[in-house]
Amino acid sequence: MQTSVSFLSLSVSAPVRIKCSLVTTPSTDPNSMAASGPKWAQKTITLPPLRRGCHLITPKIMKEIGPDLSGFKCGLAHLFLQHTSASLTINENYDSDVRADTETFLNRIVPEGPSAPWRHTLEGPDDMPAHIKSSMFGCTLTIPITNGNLNMGTWQGIWLCEHRDDPTARKVVVTLNGI
Amino acid sequence: MQTSVSFLSLSVSAPVRIKCSLVTTPSTDPNSMAASGPKWAQKTITLPPLRRGCHLITPKIMKEIGPDLSGFKCGLAHLFLQHTSASLTINENYDSDVRADTETFLNRIVPEGPSAPWRHTLEGPDDMPAHIKSSMFGCTLTIPITNGNLNMGTWQGIWLCEHRDDPTARKVVVTLNGI
Amino acid sequence: MQTSVSFLSLSVSAPVRIKCSLVTTPSTDPNSMAASGPKWAQKTITLPPLRRGCHLITPKIMKEIGPDLSGFKCGLAHLFLQHTSASLTINENYDSDVRADTETFLNRIVPEGPSAPWRHTLEGPDDMPAHIKSSMFGCTLTIPITNGNLNMGTWQGIWLCEHRDDPTARKVVVTLNGI
Repeated sequence: MQTSVSFLSLSVSAPVRIKCSLVTTPSTDPNSMAASGPKWAQKTITLPPLRRGCHLITPKIMKEIGPDLSGFKCGLAHLFLQHTSASLTINENYDSDVRADTETFLNRIVPEGPSAPWRHTLEGPDDMPAHIKSSMFGCTLTIPITNGNLNMGTWQGIWLCEHRDDPTARKVVVTLNGI
Repeated sequence: MQTSVSFLSLSVSAPVRIKCSLVTTPSTDPNSMAASGPKWAQKTITLPPLRRGCHLITPKIMKEIGPDLSGFKCGLAHLFLQHTSASLTINENYDSDVRADTETFLNRIVPEGPSAPWRHTLEGPDDMPAHIKSSMFGCTLTIPITNGNLNMGTWQGIWLCEHRDDPTARKVVVTLNGI
Repeated sequence: MQTSVSFLSLSVSAPVRIKCSLVTTPSTDPNSMAASGPKWAQKTITLPPLRRGCHLITPKIMKEIGPDLSGFKCGLAHLFLQHTSASLTINENYDSDVRADTETFLNRIVPEGPSAPWRHTLEGPDDMPAHIKSSMFGCTLTIPITNGNLNMGTWQGIWLCEHRDDPTARKVVVTLNGI
């Protein structure tokens, strides 16, 4: 009796693995159009290990959620990175120098190495700086959905900033809500 | 068959121009009260060019969405700035010195000019610093709606921080969701 | 005719006081299961005064919203701190040194005292730095809800960062939305 929201596993290129998939939608009238009632959809995306620095991940995210987004006329897409030594932010989607310069800034502003004042050093000199950078940029983003697409500006893209020297796969929980 | 949500163009003072307006609400029972079912509303607000620095924009935002907010008993208001060289943040709404001091801080922390280490300099010395500041403060805010109003603290206000020397109009996508 | 959402005052330990409680849910079909339609719930939590620094508040938040979360299969939990001299962030939930080091970082990066360049000093030398730190980390968080729980990573926790020397009670508006 549930209207269908196609937020199931999609065929994706190798580096992105889908970990889980949850299809949810409120059942009101089974005869109602899928687009007419509020819908919820949620999935966990696993991003492959990326080297320390800032990375544009809009294409990877869109490959995962694009088909589902098309079912939303108006809503919000929420991204939540389940880690404390990386971050999500929105910034320039064109010139890779912007990403390199942002990494340069983060490394200048957060001390690292023998002279750094950190107590928390068990996992190496890059550990505590990674935690700080994670809170500076944050681990969560909310983006409007309009007419089936993420309604970002022309030059905006979604970045994953990896703050560890030895990166691991990173999980992002994506939640879509709208009509 | 849709219940009406008044999220249409409003009569506003000169500096704020409405670019588009999308009225959406889930149609369930056309006889139901507008306030009883989940509602979505979304519009794009264009803010006029503002000089480099931090600006209190709560009045401008409220002028645009206030009448619509009154239809929500409980919900969330989401603001999304469609730019990568400005930012949205919530901070003190009273003493303008707080905004001036915040601009002073941002300029101290992000190097600018000949000695700055940036590669991305095509658009001028303030370009790369603007991108960094945008990720520091972020381009998105979510604020609770309670009984028809933004449920901020007494001293909180919405700031637009313009990080470019030659500012342009800035677009903010506002999405309201609630009951 | 409203289905019930148990977002009422809970029995909590002394330091956390519930200030208000708003129970809301869209009435569609009174015979429908509570879990099948979109639900909204909102309350204001008052956290006790905490000393300057970063504090793990996940247990306090969960004590307030845990029973209500269990009614949501999929959704979003939004936390909004109603203050401009403290912040909310998500970071490491285990080693308290991470919280101490983060406080060390904030104090290094934001000048305080006679040599600081601030105009806004009426409330003391820690006042303007507190405002800046609040915008650096932000006052709002959105966390996915999955199967009745906050879907954070293994090592993630919710932090309240108190930036004033003479702390006061802090209010957090929590809004739950989902199905």
